[in-house]
Amino acid sequence: MYDYTNLDAYLDSHLDESIAELSKLVAQPSVGAQNLGIKECAELVAGMLRKRGFATEIMPTEGAPVVFGERKAKSDKTLLFYCHYDVQPPEPLELWETPPFEPSLRGGKLYGRGVGDDKGHIVSRLFAIDALLNEYGELPCNVKFIIEGEEETSSVHLHEYVLNNKERLKADGCIWEFGGVDHEETPIQYLGLRGICYVELSVETAATDVHSGIGGSIFPNAAWRLVWALNCLKGPDERIRLPGFYDKVRKPSTRDLELMAALPETSAAYKKQYGVKSFIKGLTGGVELRVEEVFTPTCTICGLTSGYQGPGSKTVQPAKASAKVDFRLVPDQRPADVLEQLRRHLDAEGYSDVQVELLGGEAPARTDPDDPFIKLVCDTALEVYGKPMALLPLVGGSGPNYPFVHDLGLPVATAGLGHPDGRGHAPNENIRMDLYLKHAKHMARLMAAFGR
Amino acid sequence: MYDYTNLDAYLDSHLDESIAELSKLVAQPSVGAQNLGIKECAELVAGMLRKRGFATEIMPTEGAPVVFGERKAKSDKTLLFYCHYDVQPPEPLELWETPPFEPSLRGGKLYGRGVGDDKGHIVSRLFAIDALLNEYGELPCNVKFIIEGEEETSSVHLHEYVLNNKERLKADGCIWEFGGVDHEETPIQYLGLRGICYVELSVETAATDVHSGIGGSIFPNAAWRLVWALNCLKGPDERIRLPGFYDKVRKPSTRDLELMAALPETSAAYKKQYGVKSFIKGLTGGVELRVEEVFTPTCTICGLTSGYQGPGSKTVQPAKASAKVDFRLVPDQRPADVLEQLRRHLDAEGYSDVQVELLGGEAPARTDPDDPFIKLVCDTALEVYGKPMALLPLVGGSGPNYPFVHDLGLPVATAGLGHPDGRGHAPNENIRMDLYLKHAKHMARLMAAFGR
Repeated sequence: MYDYTNLDAYLDSHLDESIAELSKLVAQPSVGAQNLGIKECAELVAGMLRKRGFATEIMPTEGAPVVFGERKAKSDKTLLFYCHYDVQPPEPLELWETPPFEPSLRGGKLYGRGVGDDKGHIVSRLFAIDALLNEYGELPCNVKFIIEGEEETSSVHLHEYVLNNKERLKADGCIWEFGGVDHEETPIQYLGLRGICYVELSVETAATDVHSGIGGSIFPNAAWRLVWALNCLKGPDERIRLPGFYDKVRKPSTRDLELMAALPETSAAYKKQYGVKSFIKGLTGGVELRVEEVFTPTCTICGLTSGYQGPGSKTVQPAKASAKVDFRLVPDQRPADVLEQLRRHLDAEGYSDVQVELLGGEAPARTDPDDPFIKLVCDTALEVYGKPMALLPLVGGSGPNYPFVHDLGLPVATAGLGHPDGRGHAPNENIRMDLYLKHAKHMARLMAAFGR
Repeated sequence: MYDYTNLDAYLDSHLDESIAELSKLVAQPSVGAQNLGIKECAELVAGMLRKRGFATEIMPTEGAPVVFGERKAKSDKTLLFYCHYDVQPPEPLELWETPPFEPSLRGGKLYGRGVGDDKGHIVSRLFAIDALLNEYGELPCNVKFIIEGEEETSSVHLHEYVLNNKERLKADGCIWEFGGVDHEETPIQYLGLRGICYVELSVETAATDVHSGIGGSIFPNAAWRLVWALNCLKGPDERIRLPGFYDKVRKPSTRDLELMAALPETSAAYKKQYGVKSFIKGLTGGVELRVEEVFTPTCTICGLTSGYQGPGSKTVQPAKASAKVDFRLVPDQRPADVLEQLRRHLDAEGYSDVQVELLGGEAPARTDPDDPFIKLVCDTALEVYGKPMALLPLVGGSGPNYPFVHDLGLPVATAGLGHPDGRGHAPNENIRMDLYLKHAKHMARLMAAFGR
């Protein structure tokens, strides 16, 4: 065991200064969806890197700029941090106890929009770097930061940026933007993300809505067309009906199942948290539920809209109807394949009148649970958190990890300051001070160990 | 042919006064859905009847009061007029060229909310009575008016009112609240109305919406439940799947088909007016289209709502979903039967989680096209309109004619001042002055002939 007493002591005694720096960053709005403060925030972040001796560039994309920073060390190992400086919109404002862009520290928590997602991660990682520089005068390994500004708006230009900067982003391991502990304070290692293919289906059958007394018997009805088209995508058996959809699905390995079996039971917590009475597909709990949750692809209706939706009755035959549908993809499915299968299936089933618009696509990607880099991240966490990280081979959500895993060939590990009541994307987003400090201690240890 | 020169001369020379009276009635808002001016309007209407020597009562119901008026004559024949004094909400106000409750006469038309539906009918019928009283000093037949205040809100208390007042409402024939001419200026005799069973289907699968990355694979999805439940009501073959639904459907008679065949072609006009590219069930036009339009019952989705409906994407699994569905019924179907069939079918198909709320129900009813009263209405129209009335055995819309036909045993005929661009229920509702005058002339002739 190495001695991190000095690193820890530095971090313990400089927490207030780091929180002051984080508060400055949170006070700078950077709402991508509202095009608010993006440029200013990129400059602020670049300045924070420069202050630590990072060679820094603000690199334009077709969308928000990417902040890239690199600090070399006397080491042949390079660690890449992926973060983002953009945040979710703060609305609804009235539900915030303190204003979203005026960070507020109370009860051991810092509140503000983006405090956890993802500005806290940026600053606690820089805090770890401060401790290392204070202790050694230099970093134990080469460190690179890629801090994008479109994570909350589907990272639409990130893949292209990565492909255009493969040499610049070259590294030996990548720490992802998020991470944290679960309800039992167990730190979680998320090893993979599902992909996504998010589409809007829409159909228009007439120029205007028609009185249902006139049109009901003889005109096509947009809402019915939509219902039938959706029904041909998935039936009550939950089987997705696109021909070829399951062809590239990789079954969980024996190792995956072993890891899933080691995770805690979730069924009771899910039922309580979401008010769900029972699960689908006859699932009741146990490892079967956990495996089904992440290792199967989905076809989810996220929204439906058509015709009259107010109180009481209106006798109208709708001219338009639309649905938001998201397919969550597992390795080795690809959004482009699903999009093509969807169009072909709708046409084959007689729904060529149903339009398909792609609203977002990301491929799934995973890192090997037994990669040495994952082991290092877990080993360095153990001492800080006092218990081993739980390894999740795959989680249900999606994110832009595919280019890091498959184009850069990196093992991608998660580590972070998140906690179950952090309210990411919601009012009163917050981080816990103790976890902020733990994440900095973890990252300081990781960089020290990685460079050895 | 009788001589109506004096009656016509009176009506021609007193049109301005009648329009002034109508304008006063239109200026009194009476929006049932907004509980606006109902009582005041009932009193205004009762005063107008009293002025013509009608014994008048404002009779309470559980909802809006019914105005009943009766004027006896030296005749054993009684004519009953069914009208309503309530109007549709005027919104959206910004689309009115002149304010909805400030009647405006321009280009030979009177504009205002309720001017055609139904206040113009009330006042033009009273105008006909003025002409008769002026000419003869008394009415040629007994005349009764039932003028309700809930027609625009499904006439929920009318059936009970009729059942409780069968003696009072006794008559030999009934003139319905609406009527008018088509695009070719042909007056139309609508002989029947379809019934309706309007329901809201709703399903709730969780206490809150859930991130689609978490719930998609294992939680029930309200939107999917709704889609599948709807799909089991009617498939793309347009056949309604409720067992027993078609059992009481009466096929059109030979006489019905003969009348339908005599009507003008509608396919091109429909396509143009509504922007519909083609009809369902392989229909292309001709008598088949017209028969299918009214003689088959329907199951129409009037609205769909669930989850995220804004721009772009939101990855959410909806906890709630609902649909407005209207069944149009043909003789001898009944709304209560359909409601029961619907509940039973949903349960049988595994959708007992789908709630059904009845939002409105009316039974279908028809009058025999060869009833002598219908002949009289048509004969008296011929001289005024210069062409024979077209007889429609049944129309696609619904209304509360069932208690008049089946509980009071009356032949119900339509006659009115409507025209195709009258914009009922919409901004800039209007009536044509020439048709207002013609309707009064027609009604004066009808009462004179009926009493003979």
